[in-house]
Amino acid sequence: MKKQALLVIADGMGDLPNSELNGQTPLEFAHTPSLAMLASQGMFGNIHPVKPGVPVGTDVGHLAIFGYDPYEVYTGRGPIEAYGAGIDMEPGDIAFRGNFATVDDEFTVLDRRAERINVGTEALAAAIDGVVLSDGTLVIARALSAHRVAVVLRGKGLSAAITTTDPGTAKEGHKIVEPAALDASAEAQHTAELVWELTEKIYPILSLHPVNQTRLINRQVPANMILLRGVGEEIKAPKISSRYGIKGACIAGDRTVLGIARMAGLDVFHKPEFTAGFDTDFMAKAELALSKLSEGYDWVVLHVKAPDLAGHDNLPQVKVEMAEKLDQMVGYMADKLDLDQCYISYTSDHSTPCSRRDHSGDPVPTFVAGGDVRRQELSGFGERYVVHGCLTNMTGQDFFLTQMDLLGVVPKLGA
Amino acid sequence: MKKQALLVIADGMGDLPNSELNGQTPLEFAHTPSLAMLASQGMFGNIHPVKPGVPVGTDVGHLAIFGYDPYEVYTGRGPIEAYGAGIDMEPGDIAFRGNFATVDDEFTVLDRRAERINVGTEALAAAIDGVVLSDGTLVIARALSAHRVAVVLRGKGLSAAITTTDPGTAKEGHKIVEPAALDASAEAQHTAELVWELTEKIYPILSLHPVNQTRLINRQVPANMILLRGVGEEIKAPKISSRYGIKGACIAGDRTVLGIARMAGLDVFHKPEFTAGFDTDFMAKAELALSKLSEGYDWVVLHVKAPDLAGHDNLPQVKVEMAEKLDQMVGYMADKLDLDQCYISYTSDHSTPCSRRDHSGDPVPTFVAGGDVRRQELSGFGERYVVHGCLTNMTGQDFFLTQMDLLGVVPKLGA
Repeated sequence: MKKQALLVIADGMGDLPNSELNGQTPLEFAHTPSLAMLASQGMFGNIHPVKPGVPVGTDVGHLAIFGYDPYEVYTGRGPIEAYGAGIDMEPGDIAFRGNFATVDDEFTVLDRRAERINVGTEALAAAIDGVVLSDGTLVIARALSAHRVAVVLRGKGLSAAITTTDPGTAKEGHKIVEPAALDASAEAQHTAELVWELTEKIYPILSLHPVNQTRLINRQVPANMILLRGVGEEIKAPKISSRYGIKGACIAGDRTVLGIARMAGLDVFHKPEFTAGFDTDFMAKAELALSKLSEGYDWVVLHVKAPDLAGHDNLPQVKVEMAEKLDQMVGYMADKLDLDQCYISYTSDHSTPCSRRDHSGDPVPTFVAGGDVRRQELSGFGERYVVHGCLTNMTGQDFFLTQMDLLGVVPKLGA
Repeated sequence: MKKQALLVIADGMGDLPNSELNGQTPLEFAHTPSLAMLASQGMFGNIHPVKPGVPVGTDVGHLAIFGYDPYEVYTGRGPIEAYGAGIDMEPGDIAFRGNFATVDDEFTVLDRRAERINVGTEALAAAIDGVVLSDGTLVIARALSAHRVAVVLRGKGLSAAITTTDPGTAKEGHKIVEPAALDASAEAQHTAELVWELTEKIYPILSLHPVNQTRLINRQVPANMILLRGVGEEIKAPKISSRYGIKGACIAGDRTVLGIARMAGLDVFHKPEFTAGFDTDFMAKAELALSKLSEGYDWVVLHVKAPDLAGHDNLPQVKVEMAEKLDQMVGYMADKLDLDQCYISYTSDHSTPCSRRDHSGDPVPTFVAGGDVRRQELSGFGERYVVHGCLTNMTGQDFFLTQMDLLGVVPKLGA
């Protein structure tokens, strides 16, 4: 019988003992009977997304969860945002993440998010999409959430070894930075000039755009510039589908995660009710995951962003609530699945301790359960409960391979 | 007092919970008081032969057990079979594993094992051994078990970057493949041509050989060809003997293991009663190991193939029986040895779960016991009993170094 596997990713769920929760972590404090039951039917532990003591971003954490070595494939956030925006990068492309911003006519940044513009950005991106630069390089632009935008350059002899135009956070009142080459190559020098040419072209196009004319009438600042950063080359990593011959699906609300999943060769599924916020529809995700499994997907990944937000906002009680909703979602799926036929795994891309309000390098509670997976004693679920488990100190990449080996698709090394 | 060490390797013993054994693994289910007693007097855990989730072959698993990084030294099965056949490879040599096969005069494969020929193969190999090709390259050939043969080419400018002649398993009725270069080098092109020249020379030599004339009279198909595959270069890894200044012995029935042991610089010992099957003589191996220790060998490795066969054949009860025989063998040796003077270790090259009938990436129960080795609580022996041990998540290479360090032969890094 062909085996299948479900992986639930609780973004940023890992945490530290919290004084608001009697010195427990949110996951330890929360009532999570389904996670505990499943973990007791398999292997568990606290795994390092990449390596001990190294905090990682959502992008890098997910690259590891999907089996990649981030030190090898991660070239910058730009390419990941481009995949998230639905742009299929080609060899030689370079990509940026950008902000729609407000500048004056001397390119001094007045508002790096154009008053957090979130209406009309598709039209603004469309006005830049298709621009052709002096050497024939094509500009591809797609709006992302709120004031964010993905920009890809497609042409000959492009290099990501350049500085970018964004003067950085909290640098309002500073001028846009003219890009410079980071190495001595002609490609880098040429690309730096092209990015400046693009910047100078963006200003009049956006300034005259109807969206901005309407904003002026409404006494809103115009989104008349795109600040570029996170430049990177096309990610040259083999897709999971071709590497392991499996059909994978990713169900998520978060565009970054959807982008990495597309890059990894998974089919991505998104619905408006997957808000990537506290109000996301957990049960709609569960239903969609179950339907993708019954359609025959070998590996279905279900991502929930909410725990990470609770960590960033230092809301331990909300994080507890999110853990409990996630537990109910997992329990609902476990009830509908035959564990002898479908493994259920759980992990996080990184810890986001509430007390830190940011990602930390702490490892994350993880398990893989079902069928004939080896078992170990367990008395609860959460950081302290799983620490003695055999997955402890593995990496996200190790955990990916462990899941793939359960599916029987990792080629034997040797004979 | 000079310390010694004994390592017992139970090939493929690692397994998964099995429904025929009340959800226990064969090792957990088996009565293994000696293994449990020894493990409780030392360090234990489930170790990864190479890395988590990566299933390995017997060859690669043993390279790791003998302290090598397979990603660095493994170039193909050919060189390992050559060592197993007793050929001492030299720098620049390339080696193949081969099958004696039956082809027609257009080189279509009629039987890729020549009706599993197992008589006369030494004479057939001897007829090819010593052939000199047009550029002066020497052909070395040695029969292996049954229809198998090792072939080494020794000459100038040889490359392993070529395809080989074997059209693959289940490809009877297909023609032998003419080798092609896998890179643009002149060496690869030249070697591909040489291998074809060899193939064309083999056919008349073997066809006219008395062994085959006798086979024709007996209405057996002739073994008139050698299908070549698994090409690799000489393994450029320092021998254990020279690297650590120790004298090692390997006692085994399996030719692949004997080959890797020779490559690693161990003296190898084989007897006809070491069958590499279920009927192997466990106690004769024990006696030989004890005698090699009393002769002064520093490190004696005793290999048992049988558990792996039980895994491949999905015979959990037989695997239990093999575990119990192995336990008795280990207990017999432990009784005769002074544990303050001789460490006893146990591991496997990989898991071969019965339910999978093949190797898996699951880690393998392992211990090192005796003398002043650190200890930890233990309540039984097998996958679930040792999982909390300090060796868990180490690799085969780590475990090798741990044993060498107990012998005091690992050079200090730093001062």
